[in-house]
Amino acid sequence: MSVSVTCIAPVNIAIIKYWGKRDDDLILPINDSISVTLSTDHLRTKTTITAGPEIAKNVLRLNGVDESFDNPRIQRCLQEVKSLAKASGKCPKPEMLEWNINVESENNFPTAAGLASSAAGYACFVYTLATLYGIESEELSKIARMGSGSACRSLHSGYVQWARGERPDGLDSLAIQLAPASAWPDMHVLILVVSDRKKATASTHGMATSVKTSDLIKHRASVCVPERIKLVQKAIAEQDFDTFGRIAMKDSNQFHAICLDTYPPCFYLNDVSRSIIRMVDQINTLAGLNAPVKVAYSFDAGPNACLFLLEKDVAEVSAIVRRVFPFTDSSAEEYYKGIPNDETAMQAVPPTVLDSFAVEEPNLLRYIIHTKVGEGPKRVG
Amino acid sequence: MSVSVTCIAPVNIAIIKYWGKRDDDLILPINDSISVTLSTDHLRTKTTITAGPEIAKNVLRLNGVDESFDNPRIQRCLQEVKSLAKASGKCPKPEMLEWNINVESENNFPTAAGLASSAAGYACFVYTLATLYGIESEELSKIARMGSGSACRSLHSGYVQWARGERPDGLDSLAIQLAPASAWPDMHVLILVVSDRKKATASTHGMATSVKTSDLIKHRASVCVPERIKLVQKAIAEQDFDTFGRIAMKDSNQFHAICLDTYPPCFYLNDVSRSIIRMVDQINTLAGLNAPVKVAYSFDAGPNACLFLLEKDVAEVSAIVRRVFPFTDSSAEEYYKGIPNDETAMQAVPPTVLDSFAVEEPNLLRYIIHTKVGEGPKRVG
Repeated sequence: MSVSVTCIAPVNIAIIKYWGKRDDDLILPINDSISVTLSTDHLRTKTTITAGPEIAKNVLRLNGVDESFDNPRIQRCLQEVKSLAKASGKCPKPEMLEWNINVESENNFPTAAGLASSAAGYACFVYTLATLYGIESEELSKIARMGSGSACRSLHSGYVQWARGERPDGLDSLAIQLAPASAWPDMHVLILVVSDRKKATASTHGMATSVKTSDLIKHRASVCVPERIKLVQKAIAEQDFDTFGRIAMKDSNQFHAICLDTYPPCFYLNDVSRSIIRMVDQINTLAGLNAPVKVAYSFDAGPNACLFLLEKDVAEVSAIVRRVFPFTDSSAEEYYKGIPNDETAMQAVPPTVLDSFAVEEPNLLRYIIHTKVGEGPKRVG
Repeated sequence: MSVSVTCIAPVNIAIIKYWGKRDDDLILPINDSISVTLSTDHLRTKTTITAGPEIAKNVLRLNGVDESFDNPRIQRCLQEVKSLAKASGKCPKPEMLEWNINVESENNFPTAAGLASSAAGYACFVYTLATLYGIESEELSKIARMGSGSACRSLHSGYVQWARGERPDGLDSLAIQLAPASAWPDMHVLILVVSDRKKATASTHGMATSVKTSDLIKHRASVCVPERIKLVQKAIAEQDFDTFGRIAMKDSNQFHAICLDTYPPCFYLNDVSRSIIRMVDQINTLAGLNAPVKVAYSFDAGPNACLFLLEKDVAEVSAIVRRVFPFTDSSAEEYYKGIPNDETAMQAVPPTVLDSFAVEEPNLLRYIIHTKVGEGPKRVG
């Protein structure tokens, strides 16, 4: 009698960062953001929702652990999807909308790693619910956004822009696709997951404190971001990696600058993050100070780096990362995840290039995920 | 036949930071700054200048090491002081102005520690030269500034403001005293010297890159700093430690935020600096979220912290620092420098207070200097 649907949804990494809400309740941002959706082959949330008249109460399990369904954001997403389904009249079994649900959700990457798990999680929850109730709607963007702001970006594949919007009710604050993943097929991503002892400030709390105390955040939101949005849109349209990479790095830096201009300051980068930034900077200056950038970093609210690079530079950059960040605590299988290394190409990187990089102490990284830009949520199984 | 003079000059720590030049040649800043002069009892440069007809060429020794006299900033300071002495007609032996000089300068603190040694060094060089040539003049401020911008602030005792000035020739960009050290006698300073492996970006290079690439620095210089200057002036005049401390922390954070908003970013804070910031924040919230601050941090272009606090809180804060940052590599004599600890008062700090602070791994600090606000340069010996 019960009905069950399983879907997966991707992680996304912002190139122009979302930091600061203009409405805490509706989760409306103070500035537009642009993100890249990562391949679900390597990073994804998978959610199964079962609805049935025999289910005594709503149940939520995340990564095998029972969680409270009383979370107001979960409740709100559920109510909003149900209302939409009712209004649409498309639900194949309208009685389902009265049944309780059982939600099982799991990530194939460590939640603790600070890899935008809440974005993928809420996107997957909303998308799976909508699939269960038989609806497809642009309004899912707005519902996912009320779960976790950046979740609306995980509903699309490829390159995505989430508009700030002007309306107080947030109806124009939606995520739209700028370009599909296939538009820039040689874009690769290396995620460097950093070993870290310290628990960072939760991003909801951090951004609220920034909006209240940073003297620079308004200037960022009103002057810097609008200029950068235009530049990144154009760079994506023209596949101009140099501009894309430079703005990505500058915006990551500016986001962390705003965190530091907050009182008390919030810190997400640590000494290992800084070593990664220095390494990237050295790679980019190897070819000359004004040469196009080969690799760009972006850091979310945590110490892990997301490196963007083109296929032609993957072997060289991977070989340099392997030299700078040696590992002894893990096997190569545990250390390298995702797309396999091209050992032949990596061995061909000239020793003179590698030797110019200083070697850090071992095991500063937990592991590396090699992935690409990818697709949005979909039903599976 | 030769004439010799020895003087000492203090280190100063900016409360409102100087970062960015509007004129690289004259060393004119993009914003006003306010600093505190530290006691020469614990941190000082000592310079002996000898002039004599038998000296074959100008010689400079810094901390026992021969340095080139060709440094254009040294040359310029020497020429400017000589011109001033000639114009004044006050030099007791005008023929001295034709003699070569021998300069011996040494700091009683490690130059490598990043404790504003160039400010103290140039202030001492210019002051000693002027004393040798028999002049006293407000114009020394402008000459010291051309050696190292913040050196002009080390020519005064107590609380000092260096004006940005409006004139292209920099004649109105001078340092003046806001209040003598004696105006706020219970102000204490703890300098936490951090163990650090990495060499930081030189500040001259860093600030030039910030002016060129930071999108936030102009807003800081034109909007944020002028407001803060007024607040700190008032706080000093009224001995309002809460405002003084809060603005000091916010301005230190904003300066480092600008460094991070620079491309490529410059980093001066490290993970130990961040632990110090967290400790200070915890001390200040112990008495309640809106209680007046007890202790404030300020970080210059390096990982070392300068903590400001009032006499009544010295024992408690010192006991907390001792708990959070244990040492095993040094003796207590090597670890604690400057004003001796009041062990009786430190032992009286309740264990319930101390126990609420997490203990860091040992030896993250090299040593601690306990000092006070102090006097300007003077002739000695």
